[in-house]
Amino acid sequence: MSDSEGRDRETRVRDAVARRRDIVNRAITEELPIKEPERLYEASRYLLDAGGKRLRPTTLMLVAESLAGVDHETVDYRSFPDLTGGRVDVLAPAVSVETIQSFTLIHDDIMDDDAMRRGVTSVHHAYDLETAILAGDTLYSKAFSILLSNGAPTDRTVRAIEILASTCTEICEGQALDVDFEGREAVTTDQYLEMVEFKTAVLYAAASSIPAILLGADDETVEALHGYGLDVGRAFQIQDDLLDLTAASDALGKQRGSDLVEGKQTIITLHARDHGVDVDGLVGDDPTTAEIDAAVDRLEAAGSIDHARGLAGELVESGKRRLDVLPESEARGLLGDVADFLVERGY
Amino acid sequence: MSDSEGRDRETRVRDAVARRRDIVNRAITEELPIKEPERLYEASRYLLDAGGKRLRPTTLMLVAESLAGVDHETVDYRSFPDLTGGRVDVLAPAVSVETIQSFTLIHDDIMDDDAMRRGVTSVHHAYDLETAILAGDTLYSKAFSILLSNGAPTDRTVRAIEILASTCTEICEGQALDVDFEGREAVTTDQYLEMVEFKTAVLYAAASSIPAILLGADDETVEALHGYGLDVGRAFQIQDDLLDLTAASDALGKQRGSDLVEGKQTIITLHARDHGVDVDGLVGDDPTTAEIDAAVDRLEAAGSIDHARGLAGELVESGKRRLDVLPESEARGLLGDVADFLVERGY
Repeated sequence: MSDSEGRDRETRVRDAVARRRDIVNRAITEELPIKEPERLYEASRYLLDAGGKRLRPTTLMLVAESLAGVDHETVDYRSFPDLTGGRVDVLAPAVSVETIQSFTLIHDDIMDDDAMRRGVTSVHHAYDLETAILAGDTLYSKAFSILLSNGAPTDRTVRAIEILASTCTEICEGQALDVDFEGREAVTTDQYLEMVEFKTAVLYAAASSIPAILLGADDETVEALHGYGLDVGRAFQIQDDLLDLTAASDALGKQRGSDLVEGKQTIITLHARDHGVDVDGLVGDDPTTAEIDAAVDRLEAAGSIDHARGLAGELVESGKRRLDVLPESEARGLLGDVADFLVERGY
Repeated sequence: MSDSEGRDRETRVRDAVARRRDIVNRAITEELPIKEPERLYEASRYLLDAGGKRLRPTTLMLVAESLAGVDHETVDYRSFPDLTGGRVDVLAPAVSVETIQSFTLIHDDIMDDDAMRRGVTSVHHAYDLETAILAGDTLYSKAFSILLSNGAPTDRTVRAIEILASTCTEICEGQALDVDFEGREAVTTDQYLEMVEFKTAVLYAAASSIPAILLGADDETVEALHGYGLDVGRAFQIQDDLLDLTAASDALGKQRGSDLVEGKQTIITLHARDHGVDVDGLVGDDPTTAEIDAAVDRLEAAGSIDHARGLAGELVESGKRRLDVLPESEARGLLGDVADFLVERGY
């Protein structure tokens, strides 16, 4: 890939996301109005209103567009043609997955006691612990209520709800495994990838497969799209781990190398440990930029950074191949671009 | 009612609950097995295993028994006859509502930083904050997955899931209102009863109405049973508020009068305030038993305790009348007994 191809792709992805973001944002305000008790609903909306790329809702909408072969410009997402002559509200599942994402961020920030998120104060700092727990819990049930309002036949809705519920359970399991790994040395690459699958990738898989279920696609298509979500979700997390080491601190919005300081296991540190690098001794508690640079050089020399880049690239290629079940369309092309973009992005 | 009638009723209710409790407890271990990540699932099961009366699952099973006209001794709750010739797993919704109850207790204890619950250390004290938040979040999604496995036609399942989701949202709203009220003076009885409805009664209403939906009862029956749950649930909360003032501390498992010390609004303090009692000045931060007794005497003299008892009694009578939609049976009689028992219990 040339640099200009990457830039063209980035432009296409950013444009596709921007075109759908306003629609998603309007749907969020419709599905989650601020009502009594106001403080609870304000806290519930706080992070959603603070921004976010809306990659999951965009992915969900692109899958629906690909399957139905409709034009983004003219289609009504609230009354979207399914594959059997019916109509489905595609914004209901789109808002639902973003609502789940926001609930997990609120509770994660409490668990890590992170003060900042998306450039704003985290919910438990902006409000208080009690309100933040309740805001997360409110979004949790709202995500189910919103998904239920999609208008598809009930057998499809039940399958979609099953996926949403098992996805939430797996996100919790992934978060618990992540915490567990911090205290352990002997974590295998497979265990790490399972953790990433649960913690991050399952929600991408839900965003990719739920629209196919609701539109009445066949099982092979649903399975392939679920696999696409898992692949690009895992690649996304590996890219996050890479960026922590290689991106500039101001682009990251946090100190570069923070994963190393916190002793977080990543695909990079696991590879390095297997190849004789004393990962725990790489940096101290409060390293200088020069020390971080030296640590990254050591990981580079051990081949660990290339290894992670290679793995992320393989996952993206695998995910893109799964899109072959979809008819060719601009939307399908964009789903491939989204996958590439996730591992090319600089922040 | 004579004392001996009350004792007979209590014996019947305790017996009915005890007979169903073992079945519910076995179903809990089946639906929520301890698996990897073990610490997460152990924490999720910790409060469920610590006991509890299982009043909600018992109510749910009694409603199902009444509707289907089956014998508790011989029926298979996992393959329970519905009203249209099909079979439904009644233990799935029974475990689901108990799972929601347990999730709310875990998160409530974090919010109040309560160290004890059901005679054991609360989850965030026995484990840690992070694990307790995650354990609650895991039970939350599990409750939906478990309910989904009930085996009824999908249109009934969708209605049941809708009730479960809106119930969870209302529980959060009720909890937020309760916190809000602590800082306010001007709370009306209606506002208080709405808060109690959301915080406590809606889960009883879900336990009463969901089995009717899953078995295929008509809308009138579903509505009546929902109303039964709301009435007895509100009565239950008022009785809790009364017991805080009138029961012995060792029976309560906490200091008598703790609501007064904490400045909690209850139907009793709202009535007293309306009748000229300086509620905020009734007790200090660390009152003696004699001071608590004097405060209770003041509330008694203002008629506030009788007022609350009267209101709870009216709600129970209203709830019992709604049971008329059910065919006469031992199970229906027990649902009436449960309602009476909730306001007669001494702890």
